[in-house]
Amino acid sequence: MPAIASPPPKMGLRQRQKIERQNLILEVAQKRFSEMGYVDTTIESIADEAGMSAVSVFNYFGSKVGLLFALVKESDTRLLAKLRNLSDERHEEAVEAVAEFARIIHDNATTYLTKRLWRRVLAASIVEQSSEFRTQYKDLDLELQKQLGHLLVALQHSGRLTPDAPIARLTETLFMLQNSRFVQYMSSDTILEAEADVLFRADASLVLEQFSN
Amino acid sequence: MPAIASPPPKMGLRQRQKIERQNLILEVAQKRFSEMGYVDTTIESIADEAGMSAVSVFNYFGSKVGLLFALVKESDTRLLAKLRNLSDERHEEAVEAVAEFARIIHDNATTYLTKRLWRRVLAASIVEQSSEFRTQYKDLDLELQKQLGHLLVALQHSGRLTPDAPIARLTETLFMLQNSRFVQYMSSDTILEAEADVLFRADASLVLEQFSN
Repeated sequence: MPAIASPPPKMGLRQRQKIERQNLILEVAQKRFSEMGYVDTTIESIADEAGMSAVSVFNYFGSKVGLLFALVKESDTRLLAKLRNLSDERHEEAVEAVAEFARIIHDNATTYLTKRLWRRVLAASIVEQSSEFRTQYKDLDLELQKQLGHLLVALQHSGRLTPDAPIARLTETLFMLQNSRFVQYMSSDTILEAEADVLFRADASLVLEQFSN
Repeated sequence: MPAIASPPPKMGLRQRQKIERQNLILEVAQKRFSEMGYVDTTIESIADEAGMSAVSVFNYFGSKVGLLFALVKESDTRLLAKLRNLSDERHEEAVEAVAEFARIIHDNATTYLTKRLWRRVLAASIVEQSSEFRTQYKDLDLELQKQLGHLLVALQHSGRLTPDAPIARLTETLFMLQNSRFVQYMSSDTILEAEADVLFRADASLVLEQFSN
């Protein structure tokens, strides 16, 4: 289990303490959700192990689904840092660069939360329509999509995609495909990472080949 | 609310009665789920309105999610009948024929269940990993995908797709895209049918243009 990021050093003491308490709750929640499952974990048991009251946990995160979403946010923050460092230079072909983008998303996701928990997150992102959860989840997705757009632009600049490649269109469709392969991968206990990679690569080839040099 | 299909005439009396009872339960469930929402509807209230015991309902459908899934199955049976009648002759362009395929899926889905209920179905299809629900749901999806494959073959035979168009590959990727646009449409109360159509058509164009005559 990766450690949760520590707060920046220049913060006031109270603010630091608050963030440290929140991080502790997140660490306990991550452990408990993974070990006991989402449904069987209570807010009370998390508060207990973190040495706080259930009321504090509710105050910080609103609800159990709020806690789950805070973990997703944490996971996505790390992910975005990794994707920003993704160089388009490593791959001869556009398809390979895009496949690596998807692989980083899968790797990061499964390092941080179990497949079972991701299924809860994905289900909540569909059902919790009107809530803050969905809005924030969509924002994270848009941020990921933007990173994919940057990658495609870089691939075009270096000539691995043709000048007439419709970047905005490619970004949206490829992101849709990446996303559905992610859901497929998370929804099944039997699909291995390598298989998920092959599936998405086939989609990406079909879309990108016409614009590849 | 469309009426539920009646049993074939050559069946024995007992079997007919059983199917009629099941259909009555499904009609009541469809109405109650749509009006009261899935969470607030109890098996007991459905049994009550259908004039049966809750035990009968459990015996026929297993659980509330089983009942929801039986409605999806009913909806998909109608859908498959419509898709089998879908002629590839009506459209000049492959993209238009594929877009109509998606439109029929949307129309059928929303005629039969509300968007809110579809969100429950989609969430359950992700979370209920090991259950019969997921297996059956996947089978229905495969059947839909097969219909899309037939359509693409017909489009190739009539020359609207080039002879080198990789039908199996196109079928899988286009079905993935259709599916994620379906989830996007159902997940949002604000996306209109016409917008969903535009979104999927853009995906389909990107994929099909390279193989269109």
